[in-house]
Amino acid sequence: MKLNIAVLAGDGIGPEVSDQAIKALNAIALEFDHKFSFNYAKVGGAAIDDCGDPFPQKTLELCKTSDAILFGAIGDPKYDNAEIRPEQGLLKMRKELGLFANIRPVKAFDSLLDKSPLKTHLIKDVDISIYRELTGGIYFGKKEVSQDGNYASDLCEYSKKEIERVAHLAFKAAKARRQKVTLIDKANVLETSRLWRRTVTELSKAYPEVKLEYLYVDNAAMQMILNPKQFDVILTENMFGDIISDEASVIGGSIGLIPSASIGDKYALFEPIHGSYPEANGKGIANPIAAILSAAMLLEHFGLFDEAEIINYAVEKSLKLGITTPDLGIKHEEISTSKVGDFIADFISNPT
Amino acid sequence: MKLNIAVLAGDGIGPEVSDQAIKALNAIALEFDHKFSFNYAKVGGAAIDDCGDPFPQKTLELCKTSDAILFGAIGDPKYDNAEIRPEQGLLKMRKELGLFANIRPVKAFDSLLDKSPLKTHLIKDVDISIYRELTGGIYFGKKEVSQDGNYASDLCEYSKKEIERVAHLAFKAAKARRQKVTLIDKANVLETSRLWRRTVTELSKAYPEVKLEYLYVDNAAMQMILNPKQFDVILTENMFGDIISDEASVIGGSIGLIPSASIGDKYALFEPIHGSYPEANGKGIANPIAAILSAAMLLEHFGLFDEAEIINYAVEKSLKLGITTPDLGIKHEEISTSKVGDFIADFISNPT
Ligand SMILES: [Mg+2]
Ligand SMILES: [Mg+2]
Repeated sequence: MKLNIAVLAGDGIGPEVSDQAIKALNAIALEFDHKFSFNYAKVGGAAIDDCGDPFPQKTLELCKTSDAILFGAIGDPKYDNAEIRPEQGLLKMRKELGLFANIRPVKAFDSLLDKSPLKTHLIKDVDISIYRELTGGIYFGKKEVSQDGNYASDLCEYSKKEIERVAHLAFKAAKARRQKVTLIDKANVLETSRLWRRTVTELSKAYPEVKLEYLYVDNAAMQMILNPKQFDVILTENMFGDIISDEASVIGGSIGLIPSASIGDKYALFEPIHGSYPEANGKGIANPIAAILSAAMLLEHFGLFDEAEIINYAVEKSLKLGITTPDLGIKHEEISTSKVGDFIADFISNPT
Repeated sequence: MKLNIAVLAGDGIGPEVSDQAIKALNAIALEFDHKFSFNYAKVGGAAIDDCGDPFPQKTLELCKTSDAILFGAIGDPKYDNAEIRPEQGLLKMRKELGLFANIRPVKAFDSLLDKSPLKTHLIKDVDISIYRELTGGIYFGKKEVSQDGNYASDLCEYSKKEIERVAHLAFKAAKARRQKVTLIDKANVLETSRLWRRTVTELSKAYPEVKLEYLYVDNAAMQMILNPKQFDVILTENMFGDIISDEASVIGGSIGLIPSASIGDKYALFEPIHGSYPEANGKGIANPIAAILSAAMLLEHFGLFDEAEIINYAVEKSLKLGITTPDLGIKHEEISTSKVGDFIADFISNPT
């Protein structure tokens, strides 16, 4: 397969961890006879420094002419009080590329069970895929402040169409997994949640093999701690997804390991969920696993399941052998970001 | 002190657990020479059965002529698909009585540390008080559905005044505790959150001894699991408070133990956070601790701190001795709801 991949490495540790993902993809290309080409563009603070815009037109154009986007991380404390901030590029990028679905796995790696804040028996074998709507709801609705500044409002809006497109992705994923979708909403109070429930219930009839369950968001926040194993695919709106997926991200023991995909009708972007971690910049201590697993999600997106599986397997191997950066606290010789990337690329070429 | 207390015991296990709270209050009255009188009114399913309204006028009137309200629990599966449901009484009651602040403690009892889904070192000594705004925000804002049913919206609104009144309660509480308030919002995205942040920051100047910290709600959902000990008083808006306080409720190991207060300018209501648990109705297995601790919060509200402390101490004693209902799984002879209430009342009269 031929793939043109746009690399938006961004700020802080973004470039370092993206480099390791590219190493893994190059190793896969070699082994499986694919042709992956990488083209770079600036985003976030790096783009502000370059041209004053955190998501410049030429970056948008590269994204639009690529098959997929590999994203690093953005953000730098030097912009904390600036007018134009790196994060402003994010919402713009999602909207302009129509990335309406955010997908995040929640998994517990056996070698890291003792890192979880939750007790081991609760977290062992957890395997969740969270589908969050990403371009609608209250984050994008009309915002108002009164002239005297004493009143403010935010509008949460959804249309049936916005719900259906992400719901279809979630049900398709569930079909290939353990055949269960849990819709998280607040349908006992919110009108938009009732629209979600009606729309998803109706649409679920097209997937008779998939079981649909409903959970109020406040209860979901409890269940994620009490019994995360009950979940297979979670489907939810933008803000609930933001809260629940971040909550879920810590139960696996390290957010340095979690990749994500943001998918639209035309474009697809893959990125670690962690930030730019500027304190670690250039020290070789950034954990590249989330970026590497994001590359595996990219491969899966194009149906390259065997290729993705080898990357996942290589990552598990590296964790088991303790070939990891110091953040995981696995006692071993000091292993740098780049060394972890090398190990994974080598393992792809010589899996033993 | 003379107090007229309205008892709205409600449905399911509501009456059973409220009875135990009244036992404790009667024991306190006797020991401390107070005069507590109890007047009963119907609410929830019991009120629908009686007159077709889950929060009837005569119940409202009793509340308005009482010093405080002791609330049990409402809800019954027989109303699941009914036009009028018990829960509809709740929002109406909060609004009509102007109960704008909901207060929930999150504590880990030493004798129950092993019940927590979180690891013991994370949960030991946790002591949080959550102040949630209860009558504003998206739960009460304008709701719309388009005629064709394909579009829906919910409006989140806040005024400075609504924020200030609950914020003052939170800062006063923090002053008497560990002098820290954490404001949970989503000020990087929402206009209402920015109004919360401006208003609370300004108001905090009147409490120079209290440290104010800010946390985005998605990060807060993570921090509540990673390090709940960092929190003293949490202050937040209605929906974020719903999600975060429910999440927090499970880290202590049992939601059967958590009381709450809902406070307004004129009225104050005290209730366990658990539901009506109809399956347990009449079996004598309902845990009365949350209701009894709600009675302690009632006493604190009227400045009766010594009295409240004795109840809290009696509860800890009952847990330590294993004089608890079977839900806590403490191996011991079978102890009924009523027996737990008797023990606590006896202990108040003869603390040894
Ligand atoms: Mg987030
Ligand atoms: Mg709730």
